[in-house]
This record gives sequence, C-alpha cells and structure tokens, in this order.
Amino acid sequence: MTTEQDVRDVARHAKDAAADLAPLPRATKDAALHAMADALVAQTAAILTANARDLANGRDAGLSDAMLDRLALDDGRVAAMAQGLRDVASLPDPVGEVVRGYTLPNGLDVRQVRVPLGVVAIVYEARPNVTVDAAGLCLKSGNVALLRGSASAYESNTALVGVLAEAAEKAGLPAGSVQLVPGTDRESVTHLMRARGLVDVIIPRGGAGLINHVVENSIVPVIETGVGNCHVYVDADADLEMAERIALNAKTHRPSVCNAAESLLVHRAVADEFVPKVVHALRAAGVTVHGDETVLALAGGNAMDGPPVLPATDEDWAAEYLSLDIAVAVVDSLDDAAKHIRRWGTGHTEAIVSNSQPAIRRFISRLDSAAIMVNASTRFTDGGEFGFGAEIGISTQKLHARGPMGLPELTSTTYLVTGSGHIR
Amino acid sequence: MTTEQDVRDVARHAKDAAADLAPLPRATKDAALHAMADALVAQTAAILTANARDLANGRDAGLSDAMLDRLALDDGRVAAMAQGLRDVASLPDPVGEVVRGYTLPNGLDVRQVRVPLGVVAIVYEARPNVTVDAAGLCLKSGNVALLRGSASAYESNTALVGVLAEAAEKAGLPAGSVQLVPGTDRESVTHLMRARGLVDVIIPRGGAGLINHVVENSIVPVIETGVGNCHVYVDADADLEMAERIALNAKTHRPSVCNAAESLLVHRAVADEFVPKVVHALRAAGVTVHGDETVLALAGGNAMDGPPVLPATDEDWAAEYLSLDIAVAVVDSLDDAAKHIRRWGTGHTEAIVSNSQPAIRRFISRLDSAAIMVNASTRFTDGGEFGFGAEIGISTQKLHARGPMGLPELTSTTYLVTGSGHIR
Repeated sequence: MTTEQDVRDVARHAKDAAADLAPLPRATKDAALHAMADALVAQTAAILTANARDLANGRDAGLSDAMLDRLALDDGRVAAMAQGLRDVASLPDPVGEVVRGYTLPNGLDVRQVRVPLGVVAIVYEARPNVTVDAAGLCLKSGNVALLRGSASAYESNTALVGVLAEAAEKAGLPAGSVQLVPGTDRESVTHLMRARGLVDVIIPRGGAGLINHVVENSIVPVIETGVGNCHVYVDADADLEMAERIALNAKTHRPSVCNAAESLLVHRAVADEFVPKVVHALRAAGVTVHGDETVLALAGGNAMDGPPVLPATDEDWAAEYLSLDIAVAVVDSLDDAAKHIRRWGTGHTEAIVSNSQPAIRRFISRLDSAAIMVNASTRFTDGGEFGFGAEIGISTQKLHARGPMGLPELTSTTYLVTGSGHIR
Repeated sequence: MTTEQDVRDVARHAKDAAADLAPLPRATKDAALHAMADALVAQTAAILTANARDLANGRDAGLSDAMLDRLALDDGRVAAMAQGLRDVASLPDPVGEVVRGYTLPNGLDVRQVRVPLGVVAIVYEARPNVTVDAAGLCLKSGNVALLRGSASAYESNTALVGVLAEAAEKAGLPAGSVQLVPGTDRESVTHLMRARGLVDVIIPRGGAGLINHVVENSIVPVIETGVGNCHVYVDADADLEMAERIALNAKTHRPSVCNAAESLLVHRAVADEFVPKVVHALRAAGVTVHGDETVLALAGGNAMDGPPVLPATDEDWAAEYLSLDIAVAVVDSLDDAAKHIRRWGTGHTEAIVSNSQPAIRRFISRLDSAAIMVNASTRFTDGGEFGFGAEIGISTQKLHARGPMGLPELTSTTYLVTGSGHIR
C-alpha cells in the first residue's frame, strides 16, 4: 500500500524542482523537449518491451479489445508522441508574458506577469500518450509534471517517465521535473489529493467517476475537465439542411469524445418537417435515437432497418453516452431549450442552428456553458481546432480556465510593482 | 440547527436568480446599485437599531472593544457604505468584455467573452460593511451574492440585506440576487460548502482559521484570500535610508492588515550598519523586534525605552502577527533570503530594497508570491492602490486570480464560436 510519506516525498522533490524550473528561459525548456523527443525515439525498443508487459497483464485481467488498443504502443505511436513534444517546443512560451501593465498616478509601475503554477499533477486513465503530452505541456509552461496514470499502463508509464526524466535532466532541467506519483492503488491518489502546499493543482483526465472522485475529495485545487453532455438546438429559424448536417456531424464524427453531441432539441415549429428527416438520417448512420413522445410519434416507427427509436427517460436527458446514441426532444420555445440544457447539461458545449440574430443572442444569454457554437458542430470545442497548438484538457468549471486549456491556462500571474522608495 | 435543506433552498433560489441576472445590461445593474445606496441612507435608522442589538449582544458576550468598534455602525459608516455602492456603479462592467477574438483558417469566428461566475458565496467575519461591499461587487459583475457573515453581526447583516434585496428587486434585478445564507451555526457554513452545482465559488474573508476551514472542507471551488506573512528584504546594494523608510511603513502604517510586513531580512553585508538603525527606529515606533542571534547582538541591548528585543523562534518566522511585532533575521545572501521566504512565507507580498538590477531580477525569479514590491512598501498590494476601484479580497492562491481581486476576477469566460454550417 502506498503510504502518505511515499507520495509526500515525491511531491516535496517536485516542489523543490519547481523553484529551479520556473525561472528557466524558453531556450533551455525547448532544448529539453527536443532531447526528450529524441530519447523516446532512441529508446523505443525498451518502451515497447514495457508496454508488452502491460498488454499481457491487461489480457490476463480481461481488458476489452478497445481498452487494449488504447493501451498499445508501436513504433508509429512512439514517434507520434515524440513529434508531439517537438510541436510543443515550437509554441510560444507563456511564462513572462505581461498580461497587464500600467503606471499609477503615484509613479509606481505595475506589471501583471505570467508565471508557472508550480507543481501540476495529472491523474489520468489508460492511454500512455497522455504521459508524454502532459509532461511536455507542463515543462514548456515551466511547471513540474507529477503524473499518476492508471494501473493498467504502469509499466509503460514507468518506462516513458524514465526516458523523459533522464533526457530532461541531461538537457539542463532540474532533477524531479517529471515524476510518476508512486503506487497504483487508491491510496496513491488519496495522498496526492491531500498534498496541499506541495502540489499546486490536480487535473483529472478521464471518466466522470474519476473526475468526481477527485473533485469531491481533493484539498489541492482541482481543474475539472471534460464531462460533456453537449446539445444541438435546432431553432424555429434554422436552415434545416444545415441543422441535419451539424446534428449528424456532432453525433457521429467521433462519438467517444467529450465534445460529441448527446442530445438534440428541436423547436416545435419545425418538428414536423425536421424530426422525421433527422431521425432517419441518424438511424441510417447507425445511431439509436432516444426520443420524447413527440419524437416517437414523428419518427415513423421502427419499420426501416437500423437501430431502434426508443422512449427517452430522465437518464437519457442526463446521459453522456459516448456512443452512437442520442436523446432527442421537441421543445416549445428557445427558452424551453435553454431550460432543458441548464437542467440536464454539463456546461461543456451547446450548439444553436438558427438564422435569427435575436434568437442567437437570446440563446447565448440564457446559457452557462464553456462554449457555444452558432451554426457549427459541437466538435469544434478543442484546443487544436481553436489554434492553441496543444491541449491539456477541456475545463468545464468556471474558475481559472474554461473550455480548451492550452499553455497559458497552465500559468498563474504575479504582480511586479516597482517604485523608488514609495511608502503609504 | 440549520439543515442542509435550508441552505440548499436558498442556494437553489440563488442559482435560478443567477440565470436571470447574468444577461442584464450595465444600465440596469448600475441603477440597482444607486437604488440600493439610496435605500441604505433612507433606512439608516432601522439599520442602526438592528446594529444596536448586535452591539448589546456583543457586550453581553464579552467582545473586546476593538471587536465592538469593528461591529459598530453610525450615520457616517452607513453613508460610506452607500457611497461604496455608487463608486462600484461607476466602474466599467467586466461582463461582455472580449478577452480574445480571432478568425480561424476555416472561417470560424472565435470570441472568448467574460461572463459572470453565477452564484458567489462570501463567508466573512465581523464587519458589516463587507455585506454591502460584497453585494455591490457581485451584482455589478452579474453575480448573485450569497452572504454568510458572523453570528456577532447577524442582526445588522439581516437588516442590511433586507434593505439591499428590496431595493435591488424594485430596481429590476431578479428576486434572490442578494441573500443571506440561513443560520449562524457551523452547519450553515458546512452545508454551503457542500452545495456544489448550486454555488459556483466560495470566497472566505477573515482569519487563517476560517480560511483553512473552508479550504479543507469545501467541495465548492474556493478562492483563498489574504493570509499575509509579508517580508521586506534589504539587499547588499540597498539605499539604507530608503530601506528604513520602507520597513517602517510596511510594519507600522496599518499593522492589522494582511499586506503589513511581518518579517524583515537583512543582507549580512549591510547588517552592521542597518540593523542597529532599523531596530532603533522600529522600537521608537512602538514595535517589538523578534531577532535572530545576529540581530540581538547588533541591536544594542534593551537599554533604550520602548518595546523589548526578543529572541525569535520558528513561530516568529511563520507568524502573521497583525500587531506591532516584527521578526528580523540577517541572511548570508539574496538566495538565502528567497529560501527563507519560500519556507516561511504565505505567498502574499514580498519587498526587495535594492539598487542592483541583477539582484532584483534574481529575487523575482526565486520567489513565488502574489506580488513583489521593488523599492516600495508591501502596503501597496491593494485593489484600491492598484487602481481597481474596489476589491473583493486579495487572493493568495494561484488558480483563477492571484493578488488583489477586482471586478474582472469575479467573472469566468465563455467561448462563442460562429460559423455558417461548419462541420468537422
């Protein structure tokens, strides 16, 4: 069992490293990222050997093929991780950016400057590429990366962090800049969540269970990420062909991710025309529709081939399916759509399809989500799509960062105030 | 005993009000703030009657004169609170500000826009003016104010919130925009801290005990404020007259506030000259010096009239005295000063007195505090001094807001993305 001392020793080492890492210039950090990328490629064989042990353990433990595929590394995937580090190296360094700066009437110069957060802990599931991505983003933004992957990827993560840490230190970063949290048991995360003062922030990346566990129990500040019950609302004034295209794309382009649509709301004024069409198109694309009574009545029964149309329950309105399922409701008004979203949504991304500017403005003003798409698919809420170059996750909380988080979201600020003997 | 249902009912009402409050334009909010100010003045008599009950209860309960003074209201203090609301009305509205905006290569327009946080809970001690200040800042930034003052000010706060809420509603703000959390018992705060999903953020304002209690127990996101063990470091290259002026001002200008200096660190190279002078000046100003061995040796004994010079213990290095006491140490180097501050400080404000630009840069790069003063008193870390016009508190955490928090720090952001049928 992992003891509190085990975790605190590592966190203390991380905290000390953070003090030395924070002031390093961009050139040093970028050189380290390139060295880490080179080392990953050079040591691919050892990484794949460790990964094979995880895969063997996973097969013994009865992991699904999908899980095993996520876990599996090969030459191409290691090369892609290395390329990811080089891409992060090419991004601007957020540290040192002057966010605000002005001179006060008394002559004091005030500058608000970006600084690293310090020690950033990432708790994540399954895929070993998160280990490399997270390490790269943390180091680029001057933060120590404290990584806690899942037990199923332990051998892979240990190998990866070993390679990264050695290369980073050789390239001039402080020892301890990239570390694994010891242990794969529940206690390992529990102690991490208690290490306030040593760990500056915990970012959980994974399913709702993991995220809620961390949010409920951590006394270290948390950035909540990525549970998405995203809605597409088709307004009375919608271009219905556009609406069908967006609904289909939002649902089917990549159903397993948090910015996929899980619910479709249709204004009653266009329901007669739109619902039969969109249900048909969804079913033709392999989607199971969970509809309210009006939708069931308009859907035309289950005569056609394809997945069934089922009656929706409250669980459907709340569901983040992450699969080829969608909940569909007819609403009496835009305000009812907003009410539905406020009640059942997770505050991730909602889309409106409408040509009415007043309707769009009202939709925006009635909602409280990280992102709102106007005549565009929910799938665009993404750091890469937004042009951030990289993403540590998508925040669904309101404090600190909301929506896709890039490098600036991994920083805090300090006020630097310069005078010439100023007193009050 | 306050039940969870009591608190959740109020928080639910607040959450509903938040949806209606968020989209209101500046003109409506400003008119409400002016109406609230007018109502406070018009109903001063009723407010003072309620306040008199608190004062009587306080006397019976044996509150100190200082506590009673903080609690006491009079015509002038009520008028000052009203003026505070008018001042907040005159500040720019942060809601709707476009923080970033650009067009992606695919033609999607991306705007990151400030939006209210939603429901902001403030948990605070003693002074009833916080009730009015906090309500004004929350409403101006489009947030519902959920206020939990101390038991000792319960009658005053109830009267004040009654006046504010009635005036706000009459002026067009949603019912429930300003509310007291029910109860003055411990359970009242406990249930508030569990109301995740209804309350968007809790800001504790008060002593370290209150703040730590909230930080340790809340599952609602917290903004930690204001415990300050602020340091003044006198460098080898300091102008010693300036250093003395700054040390004196930082310690004695207003010892009871969080940006007062609690520790003074002196580089060994100037200790022989500076320590006797500054200790003399501090004692002449009524300050008790808690010195390390070198300071005790240089201080010249306790011959002069005035407070004694006492040996410092670890408790002194860690202390937020909030009184006319200061811990003084001699350090061998700037790096040792930084190490001392990192070990014992609270990350609030540190000052360096130096004419050496390399020393100043190194000091800044070695520290991790919300504000660093260069040749200026620690007392300048203040929303008013920074030109914010108002301050909800001084954050000493790294997430979301750090340092003095004005109106923008009471907002989150939403990404508004506009396309013309964009899909991936």
